[in-house]
Amino acid sequence: MNIDQKSVDELRVLSNEMITNAKSGHPGIALGGAPIIYSLYANVLAVNPADPKNMFRDRFVLSAGHGSSILYSTLYAMGYNLSTKDLKEFRSINSKTPGHPEVDMTDGVDASTGPLGQGISNAVGLAIAEKWFEANFNKPDLKLFDSTIFCMSGDGCLMEGISYEALSIAGNLKLDNFVLIYDYNQITIEGKTEITFTEDIEQRFKAIGFEVLYVKDGNNPTEITEVLCQAKACKKPTIVIVPTVIGYGTELAGNQKIHGSPLTAEMLESLKTKLNVSKPDFDLSADVKQNFAQKQADAKKRFDLQNKLKEYKEKYPEDYKRLQTFCDEKQFEKYAEQIKQIKVDNSATTRDINFEVMQSVDKIVPNLIGGSADVATSTKAYVKTEKSFSKYCYASKYFHYGIREHAMAGISNGMALFGGLLPYESCFLTFMDYLKPSLRMSALMNLRTLSVFSHDSITAGQDGPTHQPVEQLPTLRMIPNTIVSRPYNLAEILATYVWLVSYHKPVCMLVSKDKMEFEESSVADALRGGYVLKDAKNAHITLVSTGGDVDRCLKAAEVLKEKNIVCRVVSMPCISIFESQPDEYKKNVLESLPKVFVEASSEYYWYKLASSDDLVINITDFGKSGSPEQVEKYMKIDANTLANRICDWLKNE
Amino acid sequence: MNIDQKSVDELRVLSNEMITNAKSGHPGIALGGAPIIYSLYANVLAVNPADPKNMFRDRFVLSAGHGSSILYSTLYAMGYNLSTKDLKEFRSINSKTPGHPEVDMTDGVDASTGPLGQGISNAVGLAIAEKWFEANFNKPDLKLFDSTIFCMSGDGCLMEGISYEALSIAGNLKLDNFVLIYDYNQITIEGKTEITFTEDIEQRFKAIGFEVLYVKDGNNPTEITEVLCQAKACKKPTIVIVPTVIGYGTELAGNQKIHGSPLTAEMLESLKTKLNVSKPDFDLSADVKQNFAQKQADAKKRFDLQNKLKEYKEKYPEDYKRLQTFCDEKQFEKYAEQIKQIKVDNSATTRDINFEVMQSVDKIVPNLIGGSADVATSTKAYVKTEKSFSKYCYASKYFHYGIREHAMAGISNGMALFGGLLPYESCFLTFMDYLKPSLRMSALMNLRTLSVFSHDSITAGQDGPTHQPVEQLPTLRMIPNTIVSRPYNLAEILATYVWLVSYHKPVCMLVSKDKMEFEESSVADALRGGYVLKDAKNAHITLVSTGGDVDRCLKAAEVLKEKNIVCRVVSMPCISIFESQPDEYKKNVLESLPKVFVEASSEYYWYKLASSDDLVINITDFGKSGSPEQVEKYMKIDANTLANRICDWLKNE
Repeated sequence: MNIDQKSVDELRVLSNEMITNAKSGHPGIALGGAPIIYSLYANVLAVNPADPKNMFRDRFVLSAGHGSSILYSTLYAMGYNLSTKDLKEFRSINSKTPGHPEVDMTDGVDASTGPLGQGISNAVGLAIAEKWFEANFNKPDLKLFDSTIFCMSGDGCLMEGISYEALSIAGNLKLDNFVLIYDYNQITIEGKTEITFTEDIEQRFKAIGFEVLYVKDGNNPTEITEVLCQAKACKKPTIVIVPTVIGYGTELAGNQKIHGSPLTAEMLESLKTKLNVSKPDFDLSADVKQNFAQKQADAKKRFDLQNKLKEYKEKYPEDYKRLQTFCDEKQFEKYAEQIKQIKVDNSATTRDINFEVMQSVDKIVPNLIGGSADVATSTKAYVKTEKSFSKYCYASKYFHYGIREHAMAGISNGMALFGGLLPYESCFLTFMDYLKPSLRMSALMNLRTLSVFSHDSITAGQDGPTHQPVEQLPTLRMIPNTIVSRPYNLAEILATYVWLVSYHKPVCMLVSKDKMEFEESSVADALRGGYVLKDAKNAHITLVSTGGDVDRCLKAAEVLKEKNIVCRVVSMPCISIFESQPDEYKKNVLESLPKVFVEASSEYYWYKLASSDDLVINITDFGKSGSPEQVEKYMKIDANTLANRICDWLKNE
Repeated sequence: MNIDQKSVDELRVLSNEMITNAKSGHPGIALGGAPIIYSLYANVLAVNPADPKNMFRDRFVLSAGHGSSILYSTLYAMGYNLSTKDLKEFRSINSKTPGHPEVDMTDGVDASTGPLGQGISNAVGLAIAEKWFEANFNKPDLKLFDSTIFCMSGDGCLMEGISYEALSIAGNLKLDNFVLIYDYNQITIEGKTEITFTEDIEQRFKAIGFEVLYVKDGNNPTEITEVLCQAKACKKPTIVIVPTVIGYGTELAGNQKIHGSPLTAEMLESLKTKLNVSKPDFDLSADVKQNFAQKQADAKKRFDLQNKLKEYKEKYPEDYKRLQTFCDEKQFEKYAEQIKQIKVDNSATTRDINFEVMQSVDKIVPNLIGGSADVATSTKAYVKTEKSFSKYCYASKYFHYGIREHAMAGISNGMALFGGLLPYESCFLTFMDYLKPSLRMSALMNLRTLSVFSHDSITAGQDGPTHQPVEQLPTLRMIPNTIVSRPYNLAEILATYVWLVSYHKPVCMLVSKDKMEFEESSVADALRGGYVLKDAKNAHITLVSTGGDVDRCLKAAEVLKEKNIVCRVVSMPCISIFESQPDEYKKNVLESLPKVFVEASSEYYWYKLASSDDLVINITDFGKSGSPEQVEKYMKIDANTLANRICDWLKNE
């Protein structure tokens, strides 16, 4: 048997030792896809396992994240920082080898995957980022950026809508640095793909502008390598279709039952016999190790050929410096200070103020790149540029995503994963629902991304309940590791950008198209997450609110004043930041007065801050189609009705 | 000018009178798409405007819901129950003519649309339902069900992932009763589609099994009619590509600016001049009205030809009766009583109990139809059948959706909209995120659908944080008009089905793969939404919990008992139902003892029920890959740690 085949078979067994030992995992893809992963790492990827985060490396996204075992065993074999102990701890808590690949847990993992389809969109985002760096930093005589993004997908990822959206973008943009490897095993959990998925894949991919390449024998590393190299060289985005057999080598080969059921000890033995594998448990035999040592050297060689950083530094010192700036995390501390100083002209709405602020932030933070899902003119979250990012111009930082919210967010994640970029995206707040699965992944991967959601309340108005968010704001607040800000004025918008550059977390900013009269406040106050916007002597109650509802509260306070009820008004753009403040501060802000919380959302978060005697005014039903004024009244949150509701509550207390 | 063209042009002007008057709406599609909508209603659809809910009618889903004005003006012209007053009230609150079509507001609207892509999935669901009724009720000599589902989409709907998912299913199932009309105007809000969307549409649709038909002149009702009739007769799902000009007839024709900006009074005048339209404001001229009177009669004729109900009743009285049962809302009251009596064998997990219950519910409720997004073997939410629904067998009630959560939920909505069916669907709780936009539409449309979400907690375990829901349960609870149930035992599962048949709302049921020891309770208690599961004399505290966390609480109570702390345990499968109970009852359940709320979710809802002295134990961070036991401990919610946390809290109180 040749050493390639022997290496593949030992990886197959090693992966299944991990799975059987963990009593949990996915043998099917590990056995079927092993020749692909082996060929890719051993013969194609330009990477240096000792320098796994290097920006210039090729990337590999295992979109079919349930294949983690074969990825880990191959990374181990290729000399990444994984030990046999780590492999033994597969799927055990706090191990380097979690159930699905996690980017912060394991060297060599380029994206956290698991939710199907997400990885494909991340890979497209990585390819876009790479193209952007190519266009902005490469020189006619020096191709500094020249890497390829590989992604492996099964039928599941291809059936998901997000992958269609992202691949359509990849085709439109002619991303020739993107290679999708299709682990074509014709099986899903419920049976043969024939029962649900009978597309002509070649035709589908040609329709969106892809080159389609085939491997004939999915068990032949030599052929797989050849076709992958062909794909890498191709001047179009490419799909490589590799026929494989799920659960290869077991008695359940080709059967859906092998997808997610660990082999029994007997099945594992019989697999070893069938594949003629004899090697130490949880490790590889000596000659296979020797083979991988050579492959590791090859990979570094491929990578070194690309790494012309030294030459670049000498020839183009200014560009080199600029690139350093892009990737230097310390710069972000400076940015925070500069952002606090931004001054902009007065505007009537928070979306307009944010537009002005974005133009300034872009001048401070060079990393900002992004766009909208076809509603930039409505969200006003974009940076004015002459040209857009397109197949004709990869150098632009302004992006058109088309009407593809989900892929937009998945691509943002990919751009952030590439390094050196700070992606932003925007759409209406109700349609945040479409992209939420990707936003969750931003939070899980600790990615710094900005999502601007406009039309942030029922005052979206005439477009009706489908366009009026009600539950979306609290939904965002429930996502762990996410900063959700609903700013009311300039200072709070600036504070939001300060949070953006200060953390490695997704930041969601809600803006409004409602015309408001703005009370000013200081950025320092806003940075507390919640603060007294308008104090009052001998106040009777405190109104606590966010965004456009603060404007309503201020107006209601005027009405109440006429009825001799004096209100303090607290603005709380970001509850989680407020909650992280010292107890003493929080106590002062919320004081001992009766409190009224006002937010035009189905919001239960407030009850955490409310005592039993307080009043929470929120919305628990869908909106209505009507003018913003009509809807406000109908939902009983216009300033006058608010004032009346508060009066009634005070009377009954 | 011929009367067809005149009618189209008057509809164009009438729609824009509505928009300009409302100062809000979408002139672009109304002007471009008018010939399509006209041709469809006047010459193709088999409908009776006086009987708009008749089950046997053709359906039309305007997936590009922002085209509502042209739909309303055409419905008015065709004699549906709309007046010129209604048209004048376009986009005004509580009018019959809301901003986007709403199924319960306007006769003739077959689906609420607005969020792009949703309508296409609804239309596929309608087509599936129609095929199911065909297969189950048609006779060789009597085609009782023989209607066609038309859907109109723009570029936006086609770019959305959900539409790709749904259309791929339509192709796989060879739904020859489905016609997609593509309003091909090559413009989106941010500019020409070329910048984002350069697919070869013909190739894309052929790849998924569609017939592709073209209209040459999108302004010619005769040609459009011919091609639509061809599509209706076609033995495959069909896309009809109609080239149109956005904003036809205005100075902004072909420009994205006309998409969502009402015409000024001057532009409206100039449109009338250009189209040579002279008619009463908000109405049509006499000869156009006469034309529509004829068209209405034609539509009824087409419809009457299909309506062979009388003959069917005579020839097949048993089947006729069965069909009546399917569609008789009163039956559902009976079902509720029968469901309460269901007995099943003991099982170890709620997903297994639910599986057993579903088999019984299916025998009681004939309307149940559904399936899973390729994880039926894990969610165990399906009814055992010999055959699945497929292109070879439209008669089955068991469905394979493939890995397409979003389309699954959109198709469920379509099935429910057809009438006579009660669709269910299932996937893992974390992947609820993928389908949430459609679930919101279920709630908005008051549709009776069942979503079963399994793996409902961090104990999903080894698959890691991508597969462990944290924020999903509270996210569901935030959706208005939705029943969210997390049952703990058989009685609570039965109660959930009782809620399903008792309301016209989506029901979400969360089930677990955790093995538990079940305390029994009565269905009557469970139906209160929250009740005392285990009372205790001289109790010190009350534990309140749901689902698998109830099991944890019961075990923690045992541990606490040894420390002389006596606990009552309250199970609260459905908070919203509990909240609707009389105050006295609620007070008794929650009593005056200190309370501890326990739920392994990022849950703020509980603070509403908690007083300031109570303890809320929840999870605000992502999960971890590890065995369920490891994860429980890591997240500090295993029974022992729970007991210790409660002890500490009692000490510090």
